[in-house]
Amino acid sequence: MSNISFSLEELAIVADGEIVGDKQLQITGFAPLEAAGVGDISFLVKGSQVEKLDNFTGSAVIVPMAVEESSVPVIRVDDPYLASAKIHSLLIEKPFIATGVHAQACVGEGTTVPQLISVAPFVSIGAGVTLGERITIEAGVVIGDGVEVGDDTLLKANVTIAEGCKIGKRVILFSGAVIGSDGYGYATDKQGFHTKRPQVGIVQIDDDVEIGANSCVDRAAYGITHIKSGSKIDNLVQIAHNVIVGENSLIVSQVGISGSTTLGRNVVLGGQVGVTGHITLEDGVMVAAQSGIHNNQKAGSRVGGSPALPMKQYVRAAIQYGKLPGMGRDIRTLKKQMAELTAVTEEQSGSTK
Amino acid sequence: MSNISFSLEELAIVADGEIVGDKQLQITGFAPLEAAGVGDISFLVKGSQVEKLDNFTGSAVIVPMAVEESSVPVIRVDDPYLASAKIHSLLIEKPFIATGVHAQACVGEGTTVPQLISVAPFVSIGAGVTLGERITIEAGVVIGDGVEVGDDTLLKANVTIAEGCKIGKRVILFSGAVIGSDGYGYATDKQGFHTKRPQVGIVQIDDDVEIGANSCVDRAAYGITHIKSGSKIDNLVQIAHNVIVGENSLIVSQVGISGSTTLGRNVVLGGQVGVTGHITLEDGVMVAAQSGIHNNQKAGSRVGGSPALPMKQYVRAAIQYGKLPGMGRDIRTLKKQMAELTAVTEEQSGSTK
Amino acid sequence: MSNISFSLEELAIVADGEIVGDKQLQITGFAPLEAAGVGDISFLVKGSQVEKLDNFTGSAVIVPMAVEESSVPVIRVDDPYLASAKIHSLLIEKPFIATGVHAQACVGEGTTVPQLISVAPFVSIGAGVTLGERITIEAGVVIGDGVEVGDDTLLKANVTIAEGCKIGKRVILFSGAVIGSDGYGYATDKQGFHTKRPQVGIVQIDDDVEIGANSCVDRAAYGITHIKSGSKIDNLVQIAHNVIVGENSLIVSQVGISGSTTLGRNVVLGGQVGVTGHITLEDGVMVAAQSGIHNNQKAGSRVGGSPALPMKQYVRAAIQYGKLPGMGRDIRTLKKQMAELTAVTEEQSGSTK
Repeated sequence: MSNISFSLEELAIVADGEIVGDKQLQITGFAPLEAAGVGDISFLVKGSQVEKLDNFTGSAVIVPMAVEESSVPVIRVDDPYLASAKIHSLLIEKPFIATGVHAQACVGEGTTVPQLISVAPFVSIGAGVTLGERITIEAGVVIGDGVEVGDDTLLKANVTIAEGCKIGKRVILFSGAVIGSDGYGYATDKQGFHTKRPQVGIVQIDDDVEIGANSCVDRAAYGITHIKSGSKIDNLVQIAHNVIVGENSLIVSQVGISGSTTLGRNVVLGGQVGVTGHITLEDGVMVAAQSGIHNNQKAGSRVGGSPALPMKQYVRAAIQYGKLPGMGRDIRTLKKQMAELTAVTEEQSGSTK
Repeated sequence: MSNISFSLEELAIVADGEIVGDKQLQITGFAPLEAAGVGDISFLVKGSQVEKLDNFTGSAVIVPMAVEESSVPVIRVDDPYLASAKIHSLLIEKPFIATGVHAQACVGEGTTVPQLISVAPFVSIGAGVTLGERITIEAGVVIGDGVEVGDDTLLKANVTIAEGCKIGKRVILFSGAVIGSDGYGYATDKQGFHTKRPQVGIVQIDDDVEIGANSCVDRAAYGITHIKSGSKIDNLVQIAHNVIVGENSLIVSQVGISGSTTLGRNVVLGGQVGVTGHITLEDGVMVAAQSGIHNNQKAGSRVGGSPALPMKQYVRAAIQYGKLPGMGRDIRTLKKQMAELTAVTEEQSGSTK
Repeated sequence: MSNISFSLEELAIVADGEIVGDKQLQITGFAPLEAAGVGDISFLVKGSQVEKLDNFTGSAVIVPMAVEESSVPVIRVDDPYLASAKIHSLLIEKPFIATGVHAQACVGEGTTVPQLISVAPFVSIGAGVTLGERITIEAGVVIGDGVEVGDDTLLKANVTIAEGCKIGKRVILFSGAVIGSDGYGYATDKQGFHTKRPQVGIVQIDDDVEIGANSCVDRAAYGITHIKSGSKIDNLVQIAHNVIVGENSLIVSQVGISGSTTLGRNVVLGGQVGVTGHITLEDGVMVAAQSGIHNNQKAGSRVGGSPALPMKQYVRAAIQYGKLPGMGRDIRTLKKQMAELTAVTEEQSGSTK
């Protein structure tokens, strides 16, 4: 299937691992343990599952350090999950093929197209756009005037990048993503009519960011909405105007972040989380799915619930929530018993006087 | 308006109903009770509302079996809601008209286009695509290389189907839907950098599925993300990699299903539900809107809340939730009374000794 | 940068304000207080922050009435937030430039295109479409047959408007918005198969409405789904079939409104709110983010929570929620104490008899 081939030794270097077995063994593909064939490398996450290798039909396996010996050639690594991602990526890597600009694409005035580029049909590139090398632009993409796109970036079909936005290197924007739509800002008069507040800023997306299908990152009212390098945003996420997302943050599907909120580095937001505007989530904050965040969060905090609580408190409260009907009954019973007991005690109090 | 005409007898066969009235009566349209004109058929859901027929201005009515007589011609059926859907569909059915491939559409190498097809302008069909008969592809649709699309399928404007995905027969993909975007999978190193895990699987959508506007179904990391036949997915829904949705499931708007979760047949997820990854919701599970599902659910379970509880418990807990402030006060009062009473009792205990 | 220039007097008229300073001062731009240069006007929201003007480097400032004197020229207004929106909008207003229909756009039969229009490449306009004056249609937009679009409307890149829908004047539809997709309606038979209920209505969007990126407004099953004038809808919002949104309502990102629900005027729905079907939210109802609304709401109600409670009750209950673990412990303790006390009291009761 593939004419790519790497020696086990080459792969071990990529994965920072140690080989047990033939270093010159040639690997041509990657497959799960149960589906591997000749030439394939697989991976095992837990050392305790080493017996799974007994019936292995592939050629080599990435294993945790805990596995010291094996009937098949292995690469021992600290983190098989990470190592397998690196090795698999290497095995499927394709050289960039420049197809140029398709005859049915459209490029605006003042936009210089580099030789090493692939632009599909029905792509509209505006005026004064700056394009790096080895960019792939799939069909139906629309790039507004004055946009900048860095080297090796991939724009999947039907992506929209509005005027003036800046996209870094090795970025992937998935289909339907909309970058640079107007922020949601209005001023309301006494009659209840809304006047649009101009949204004259841009979106800046730094290197190595991925933004999922049909996600939206709105342009700043003034200044920039900023997605910093290495952050990965899932599908159907809403990032409002003037939000800053720190480096290497993970934002899972259907999250919404309101305007002018700042996320630090390596923040993790679970699916469907909502974050209010004008707050700060410091480095490494982790938020459980479906939570609602209304306040600043200190570095490293783990929170959950809507409104959010510290994680342990949230888990306990959530368990107790299911017991609420019983608690209500208990309180009613206690109140009744208390009244009866008080009456008896008062009577006794009288009788003993 | 329409030159379609069916006799009441023909419609009764479609709806599996019994006619009271003229079997040869010609019906040419469908309208709600209050808006029906000559030639129109309407429907009545509840027999108790039969007096609504007194001022009926249309030609015939679909009624429940409970209605035995009527001043207007009727088709008596077990389920008027279902019968009206079938009859209305029949009355508005249009024959497929093949317009061929528009001059401003683009078809890749190795893709054979059948004669009976309608492809609008600015449609990009990749290389090696397999297309069934009587497919309608609206403007702005992008179909990746190697995609398969079955007979009678309808792809609405601006849909994206990424490379290698398989779409069945009589499927409808609504505008902006993205099929086969990369799953959200990364491995993180000790410095907090994320390495992309390759997403090399596909999406398979079986016959008679509908997928709503701007919904996303991600390709599998390995293998398939599978939407089985007859399932209906609403708008803005997120289906992650390797999810399996069983036959005839209903997934309402803005639901998110995390990776590798399996839904059985006829599962119903209310709007904005979130389902965690790697769990199973067995056949017929029903989940209330906005719920969060973190655990496997047995067949036929009805659950609600975030995290979800059995439906009855959830409803009771939700009622009690509103009473929480009062419960807090009650507990404070009880603690105070208990302290007082204990003091009195101890005193009495002393005084009686 | 700009060759637009207005006198302070002209701007004061737009903002309904009073000038303190040189009425003939020429203003050429708008900037935040800390970024203003020569020719720029800024704004100050609170009179208490008037010392911020001391280091002001721009030319004039919009201030609240509370500011009576200033070292820089000012326009005193009732609402600086609103006034600045009006003045900023005026300063960035660009005259409509008609570029006509791009050679690579496509217009259907029976559609007359007015002279004053701008249609970008890869726009598909269906048959029998009615277009007003000064409409801007960006690349990748698809307009179905029989659609109507009013004067001065802006359709951003990759918008879809399905057949028969009506769009008013001065409307903005942001990228990826889908107007007129089928409503989600099925009838289910005893075997669990779903029959599609035809969705033959339309969407009507009145004047001055904005609809955010990747939002969806479904066509009515019968009749219209109606977004009334002046309403502003954020990104990734779902509006189901036959919903009515009253004038000047604000619907924040990721809200979902189920079928046949009616919103009055100036309703405000916070982010990620879910509203059930077939209910009415009267004029001025305000709903907190992430809430779930299951019942009719009276005019002016403020509610929060899922299911929603009156706002004050919700806030108290949410605070109490975090205390649930303690409440559970308190109740267990009280039950134990009650049992002990009852035993003691009964014993005493015996001993005193």
